[in-house]
Amino acid sequence: MSGNTFGTQFRITTWGESHGPAVGIVVDGCPAGLPLSEADIQVDLDRRRPGQSKVSTSRSEEDRVEILSGTFDGRTMGTPISMIIRNKDAISSAYDAIRNTPRPGHADYTYQAKYGLRDHRGGGRSSARETVGRVAGGAVARKLLAQDGIDVVGYVTELGGVRSSISSISAVPAPSLSISDLRSATESNPVRCPDQKAIALMLQAVEVARKEGDSVGGVAEILAVGVPPGLGEPVFDKLDADLAKALMSIGAVKAVEIGAGVECARMRGSGMNDPLAFVEGAEGKVGFETNNAGGILGGISTGAPILCRIAVKPTPSIPKRQRTVDLVVGEDAEIEIKGRHDPSIPPRIVPVAEAMVALVLADHLLRQRSARLMD
Amino acid sequence: MSGNTFGTQFRITTWGESHGPAVGIVVDGCPAGLPLSEADIQVDLDRRRPGQSKVSTSRSEEDRVEILSGTFDGRTMGTPISMIIRNKDAISSAYDAIRNTPRPGHADYTYQAKYGLRDHRGGGRSSARETVGRVAGGAVARKLLAQDGIDVVGYVTELGGVRSSISSISAVPAPSLSISDLRSATESNPVRCPDQKAIALMLQAVEVARKEGDSVGGVAEILAVGVPPGLGEPVFDKLDADLAKALMSIGAVKAVEIGAGVECARMRGSGMNDPLAFVEGAEGKVGFETNNAGGILGGISTGAPILCRIAVKPTPSIPKRQRTVDLVVGEDAEIEIKGRHDPSIPPRIVPVAEAMVALVLADHLLRQRSARLMD
Amino acid sequence: MSGNTFGTQFRITTWGESHGPAVGIVVDGCPAGLPLSEADIQVDLDRRRPGQSKVSTSRSEEDRVEILSGTFDGRTMGTPISMIIRNKDAISSAYDAIRNTPRPGHADYTYQAKYGLRDHRGGGRSSARETVGRVAGGAVARKLLAQDGIDVVGYVTELGGVRSSISSISAVPAPSLSISDLRSATESNPVRCPDQKAIALMLQAVEVARKEGDSVGGVAEILAVGVPPGLGEPVFDKLDADLAKALMSIGAVKAVEIGAGVECARMRGSGMNDPLAFVEGAEGKVGFETNNAGGILGGISTGAPILCRIAVKPTPSIPKRQRTVDLVVGEDAEIEIKGRHDPSIPPRIVPVAEAMVALVLADHLLRQRSARLMD
Amino acid sequence: MSGNTFGTQFRITTWGESHGPAVGIVVDGCPAGLPLSEADIQVDLDRRRPGQSKVSTSRSEEDRVEILSGTFDGRTMGTPISMIIRNKDAISSAYDAIRNTPRPGHADYTYQAKYGLRDHRGGGRSSARETVGRVAGGAVARKLLAQDGIDVVGYVTELGGVRSSISSISAVPAPSLSISDLRSATESNPVRCPDQKAIALMLQAVEVARKEGDSVGGVAEILAVGVPPGLGEPVFDKLDADLAKALMSIGAVKAVEIGAGVECARMRGSGMNDPLAFVEGAEGKVGFETNNAGGILGGISTGAPILCRIAVKPTPSIPKRQRTVDLVVGEDAEIEIKGRHDPSIPPRIVPVAEAMVALVLADHLLRQRSARLMD
Repeated sequence: MSGNTFGTQFRITTWGESHGPAVGIVVDGCPAGLPLSEADIQVDLDRRRPGQSKVSTSRSEEDRVEILSGTFDGRTMGTPISMIIRNKDAISSAYDAIRNTPRPGHADYTYQAKYGLRDHRGGGRSSARETVGRVAGGAVARKLLAQDGIDVVGYVTELGGVRSSISSISAVPAPSLSISDLRSATESNPVRCPDQKAIALMLQAVEVARKEGDSVGGVAEILAVGVPPGLGEPVFDKLDADLAKALMSIGAVKAVEIGAGVECARMRGSGMNDPLAFVEGAEGKVGFETNNAGGILGGISTGAPILCRIAVKPTPSIPKRQRTVDLVVGEDAEIEIKGRHDPSIPPRIVPVAEAMVALVLADHLLRQRSARLMD
Repeated sequence: MSGNTFGTQFRITTWGESHGPAVGIVVDGCPAGLPLSEADIQVDLDRRRPGQSKVSTSRSEEDRVEILSGTFDGRTMGTPISMIIRNKDAISSAYDAIRNTPRPGHADYTYQAKYGLRDHRGGGRSSARETVGRVAGGAVARKLLAQDGIDVVGYVTELGGVRSSISSISAVPAPSLSISDLRSATESNPVRCPDQKAIALMLQAVEVARKEGDSVGGVAEILAVGVPPGLGEPVFDKLDADLAKALMSIGAVKAVEIGAGVECARMRGSGMNDPLAFVEGAEGKVGFETNNAGGILGGISTGAPILCRIAVKPTPSIPKRQRTVDLVVGEDAEIEIKGRHDPSIPPRIVPVAEAMVALVLADHLLRQRSARLMD
Repeated sequence: MSGNTFGTQFRITTWGESHGPAVGIVVDGCPAGLPLSEADIQVDLDRRRPGQSKVSTSRSEEDRVEILSGTFDGRTMGTPISMIIRNKDAISSAYDAIRNTPRPGHADYTYQAKYGLRDHRGGGRSSARETVGRVAGGAVARKLLAQDGIDVVGYVTELGGVRSSISSISAVPAPSLSISDLRSATESNPVRCPDQKAIALMLQAVEVARKEGDSVGGVAEILAVGVPPGLGEPVFDKLDADLAKALMSIGAVKAVEIGAGVECARMRGSGMNDPLAFVEGAEGKVGFETNNAGGILGGISTGAPILCRIAVKPTPSIPKRQRTVDLVVGEDAEIEIKGRHDPSIPPRIVPVAEAMVALVLADHLLRQRSARLMD
Repeated sequence: MSGNTFGTQFRITTWGESHGPAVGIVVDGCPAGLPLSEADIQVDLDRRRPGQSKVSTSRSEEDRVEILSGTFDGRTMGTPISMIIRNKDAISSAYDAIRNTPRPGHADYTYQAKYGLRDHRGGGRSSARETVGRVAGGAVARKLLAQDGIDVVGYVTELGGVRSSISSISAVPAPSLSISDLRSATESNPVRCPDQKAIALMLQAVEVARKEGDSVGGVAEILAVGVPPGLGEPVFDKLDADLAKALMSIGAVKAVEIGAGVECARMRGSGMNDPLAFVEGAEGKVGFETNNAGGILGGISTGAPILCRIAVKPTPSIPKRQRTVDLVVGEDAEIEIKGRHDPSIPPRIVPVAEAMVALVLADHLLRQRSARLMD
């Protein structure tokens, strides 16, 4: 009950510290019979992998996944799927200087306060390296969702103050780009923004901050299409509530929005409510003329695309001198953070956020199987 | 596993439909020995109760709570606390007209899609009446938190486009008002806004919308003070992740922010990071000079006030004519919603949001007891 | 997490003290569409009800159930089913004398040690009255199981040293009596023994003990027929493991056996293993020639009848003088227990044990829905 | 929710198939600050390891554990402890012959029925090899329990029909041997029986069966001393209920008894109830004059030793020819099982059963921390 497990029926447990021997994950509850190979996992891990561009850390990890259980003859067996990824390029000495001086904006102080001790090297368990496990688990979830025609795609909509013109708010039944075009436009550039006009400006904003020893924040959207109506449980385990938890649990996320999000506060009911209408040519299928709800009403999916948005804070590890305390000496102190850090998090958070959305949807897809009497 | 239970160690299960005989809650995991009476619960229920002003529904419910188990001689016994509140003023006939025509912005269509049947009267389980149980459970949590000097207070910061000047963003170590002043300023007016200058404007905005057969949205903040450092679990059950789920699970909430929230996307690391410093005169106590983190780093409380913000959509039930479908006839239809509805939700959501924050904190307070070896 | 919830997908939470205002239960996770009325519940409650014969307590409770939520137009809605049963015939004064002197064989001392305080009246939460909720929840589970042709029946096989000749060990594919004959033979007599020759002897054994101010123990079997192969989860949530927990959680049960049970310790593999064979006339259906396994292999149902057996200790509340301690005075003491108590528990435990087996099976029936990819 | 996780606050998740690359475990919820090294785990794994004597399988596994996370500088950090043990001596070809013919007494048929496919090699996930993870997790639990002076020891009391004279039923406050003598007497011989007179007879009984191509069953007891009063939760998560589940979840266990166990069915209340008395010389400490309760009343520990007993079926894998079915050909068939198998399970089940008892106690030790208000 220490918070390293997520999900109820499709459930993951992750483990591992940034500078320990490995990080990993156990996926429990994946139905038997799903085709699954290490290559299926690797493709998402490669998207999350550091060292790929100037806007991400130069730590170089191969992030080669090994599946240790749960599959046989290329299919899942219904038993737990254990996956391990070795840590190879950890440089722990870079952290000696900050052992006693908690980094502002980091979990150093709070871990120490909670446990009385911690692994200070690279942030230990609080490091973003922990998300390797999430992405590996999310890749399994995506394979399961694909069986039902559900797809999840994420992209950056704002970085360092530069806004993209491509967003999916109120875009119904699908965004201006097809999902595959949206994905390829996103994955073709280091800031993961599908708006080709914004890319250069975003890169520039990151570079300016980096040169000043600083970092920038941003916004990402995650879109899930093909989700049938009916997913989500009433009251506490609402689909949007579980998505909010899933996304807020990613380090650096400080806000989660669904559909119109914060803007709904300034809208009127007549503008916010999405009118229902039968879909032409689709016998008895109900659709929505707008999607301010973000595909969720009363915590249950409507059949329209699910739309989530996250605000991501600027990287807390910056070279600039900052004020902190020395917990051993007992005096205020200053700190200059060395080591290799992403000057902006949003581009690399995209595959992690996609993974979390996929995990929530896979879980609710299985939960929905018990909602009614069998016919 | 159908989503009607919340929390791990301090755990509530709620039940009840809007027009059924009663609504209620079972609280499990409250430690033995806590003084608790029905009056402790009633005070919060009375704050949530409908029929109190022009900005809320005219449904008139006494909402008298009965404690059926778990206490003896005025103290909790460690056994489940069952509480029941009878429904008395339900007028089900008002809902006959909409049995087959799902209301836009409501859960009518999604419940039908999920379960194949539903109680259409007053929204059934999806009604805001369900929050009675949350508030009753939250009242128990607040009693427990008070033992440790933790207090939770909420207030409206924006309504119908009118913004209050009183917010707690970056207010450290406490907001401009003391907690008791903040609470009394909030509770003295029907819009639950502590900024006396904004109240009349907010009331006016609500009234204008109501006269036009429409409704307005808004924003509320919830502040928790006295929270010790160390609450929250790493990775998935982060304190902010659990708060996000708790708050997003309240109907009408479309966004959850922690601390600087969405604004962090436009900040730089050097501005976002809260510098640490020893608190003068408090031997060895670490403080923060700002509170952009909203009292949480790495998912664990820092000791600074916890600050959450929610964006609340305009009431979906509006008299204005809206487009929908008739599920039985199989044709597009129009609907005009009758019944008694709040023209704005934020003022009444405040005690519910406080309850959810209290429930999350009570749960993590108990979880923290297992974080370390006993001394 | 205080242990008042049972099950994962079909999940119950019970509450209530013996001498509080009521006892009750919330059933969460029952699929929508199941026909359910109060009469369905009442029939099982009536079987558990006290005051029915000389072998049970003379406490007279009507045990009238009220369903407060979760059904509409006679069907379940997928939302929590809350049920309440008022306590009416509690005589608390009978317990004043034992407030400080824990009764041997009871939970008085352990509750005091755990919580530091307790409701001493009638055993409070530790009273067998708590099983009212289990039986009500079990009745819902039985309705669900009946949809799939699964039936659960229990009966006494030993009482006060008298053994019945009717047992289902190794009885394959069904016991010597049909299920309906077994049930009617069982329910026709106060000791709930289907062996008509043993009844008088059992009654006599109970009566002899009662006259001597003492009580007797016994054994009951619970049989579930119609269970398809494949229910149960590997490793920890094995079907037999969950049954063992479910049955051992009933007060007074000190042993749980599956199939051949303790006797397997004296058997050889060649005698214990149940040979497999195709069932004649049933295309491709696999059967077992014996049922030492009790219908479970590797924690998963085989399709043969599930057979459980429980050993039930003699009623701890006896008029005979016993040695104990006075916790207030701090000295050893003696005690003579007054109040109304069953001189033997097995006959009244039968409906409770049936309920627990039904709850486990209903839970695993729903869990099995997620075991494989959908066709 | 697929049953590979056990415990609530001290929680383990195991993974791995018999002939996959490795087996392993994640321990979550272990408090920070506990000294822990691989050597602490290895000592218990070595006791479980196969290939140690004629009464166990000749499969030769080093079972060298690697801790991959959760510790730093020799102490636990409160983060998940991941442990992996590579499989090295799997000979999968021995299982080709039985791919389509389920072994009687094994999970082959039920896994196939549940999942539609399975890893047939060595029983896959249903193999006793899965218990490696349990023992590793139990070793961590034991370290935690030792901090509070709690010790767990198991031993064989019956094998192949030969009964040991050493048992702890009704032995209060401790068995005839000290715990350390009991342990060393047990661990000094291959049948793990502390009664030196019974050892040769037990070995002979196993050998006779083995020569006849058969196997034998037996009984083991597990004793926990130093357990304080107050552990266990009322109603469903009773300490004995959780022990019953934990022990019944071990393959081959067909019965679980607590204290007097099945014999209680033949006792009277006056003999079964354990009289309470203040312990001489121990100010205010309450003791029990007998221990028929096995240290648990109302599901909560009394402070007396916890006593559990399990009946273990004979090894199902026997060379003798047995009847089964061929699932591919669709006809009845015969089978002769090759491969390397233990001719009796009880000696090797002892460390596994100890581990499960330790895991339950560690979980309830942590749960008890939330039972009351903090002083």
